[in-house]
Amino acid sequence: MSSSHSPIGVFDSGVGGLTVLRALASLLPKERFIYVGDTARVPYGTKSPESVRRFSLEIARYLKKRHVKAVVVACNTVSAVALPDLRKFLPVPVLGVIEPGARAALAATRTGRVGIIGTLATIRSGAYEEAVHRLDSSLKVFCEACPLFVPLVEEGWVGRNPVTLQVARLYLKPLLAKRIDTLILGCTHYPLLKSVLKKVVNQVELIDSAEETAKAVRSRLEQDGILAPYGRRGECEFFSSDDPVKFTELGHKFFGRGLHRAERIHLEGV
Amino acid sequence: MSSSHSPIGVFDSGVGGLTVLRALASLLPKERFIYVGDTARVPYGTKSPESVRRFSLEIARYLKKRHVKAVVVACNTVSAVALPDLRKFLPVPVLGVIEPGARAALAATRTGRVGIIGTLATIRSGAYEEAVHRLDSSLKVFCEACPLFVPLVEEGWVGRNPVTLQVARLYLKPLLAKRIDTLILGCTHYPLLKSVLKKVVNQVELIDSAEETAKAVRSRLEQDGILAPYGRRGECEFFSSDDPVKFTELGHKFFGRGLHRAERIHLEGV
Repeated sequence: MSSSHSPIGVFDSGVGGLTVLRALASLLPKERFIYVGDTARVPYGTKSPESVRRFSLEIARYLKKRHVKAVVVACNTVSAVALPDLRKFLPVPVLGVIEPGARAALAATRTGRVGIIGTLATIRSGAYEEAVHRLDSSLKVFCEACPLFVPLVEEGWVGRNPVTLQVARLYLKPLLAKRIDTLILGCTHYPLLKSVLKKVVNQVELIDSAEETAKAVRSRLEQDGILAPYGRRGECEFFSSDDPVKFTELGHKFFGRGLHRAERIHLEGV
Repeated sequence: MSSSHSPIGVFDSGVGGLTVLRALASLLPKERFIYVGDTARVPYGTKSPESVRRFSLEIARYLKKRHVKAVVVACNTVSAVALPDLRKFLPVPVLGVIEPGARAALAATRTGRVGIIGTLATIRSGAYEEAVHRLDSSLKVFCEACPLFVPLVEEGWVGRNPVTLQVARLYLKPLLAKRIDTLILGCTHYPLLKSVLKKVVNQVELIDSAEETAKAVRSRLEQDGILAPYGRRGECEFFSSDDPVKFTELGHKFFGRGLHRAERIHLEGV
């Protein structure tokens, strides 16, 4: 059984979700977090919805055994295709990143023309479009899959790398032609590309759903009366399905500070 | 038990190994081939040797159940890090792509200065360097990992795409500075980049190990007396661990012609 003392589970296909954990740990400094990155099977964004669902349920099974009090799906692809399955399986609140991202875009747009970029699986699912239209059906939504952004970030070609700049120009051209004024970064890797993207989109507002997701998690814990008790010191534990050394090396870029040593866990067929 | 009538198992992390199957099927038209692509966990080239070994042994277990008479490891990363484990586990000949690639490079070089490009895992393993030096310890070998080439090929940015050209120039610059005259394409995706690479390396000879591997397989089957009986018509069966429809769509680019419908198989924890 979980209680307010229990940890919060946070997971992603790899290290990208650490941008979300970072916002969570900053907004909820008394909470304990268990982060799982499925680095043995990363990426999810190019895989079929069936595989993504199966992988996600295996991670959920692990987090259930750890008696988490809530699960944050810090992965846009999983949030897009597996949220109903996870909610059915887990006896605790399950929060994704898409609804908060859509909400932030609605608050930001002035012209009602919103762009969304993400992995192939996220864009194909139509989940962001649906989430935006559930909030306001009059908004115009334009989507573009950007499969090369994740490998470019993992290669470390961020900042103002000329290749990344050229790729960003190609991917964003059709969205800019639609005169969007707001762009949802629908993948947890993309916040690391902010400086490149800003150069390409100029005045367009970039929406990174991490902070909005952290706020949504806090509201839900408050509402359910399961916030960590006053005075406790929070912590983060890290688990990966591939080499934990590589996980911590790559992870600190996303987490913004050093990670405690991660531990390897076995997720398959659990 | 396997016999000369049995099929040959061929596997890769995904669709890249189909460039090797293509060469095999063309040189050995009477053989039956079972091709397995672990598309649910692709790529292998960014994963740790431990994970690559575990995945490979799961595929080997599947092929063993199918009573194959030989196994061709049509993946450079697996050939680089898991060949001894596979040879220990499988009771039939196991052939990789690295030894044949090294042999072809030795035959091609005039100056004795050989470049090798591949995934991070392949380059870090040092397997090509070792294989080349086992053949001729006087050769000078220079290596470079090119992590973005696989995603660029899968995005379809081949031909003379300006982004791919720029990436290739960046990756190959240090090798060209070493005045190599021969370049081993140490990843089954890279043959699809030949026209881009040729533009960057000019007179340098490009070594695609697919054909050399096919020749090595034929020699071994002859030597062991297990070539398919005269007069039989060969065939290829395809299996993937993720969506078989996506596998056939992406796969035809690598196989050079249409694929029979693939079937989904479950590999994890087999």
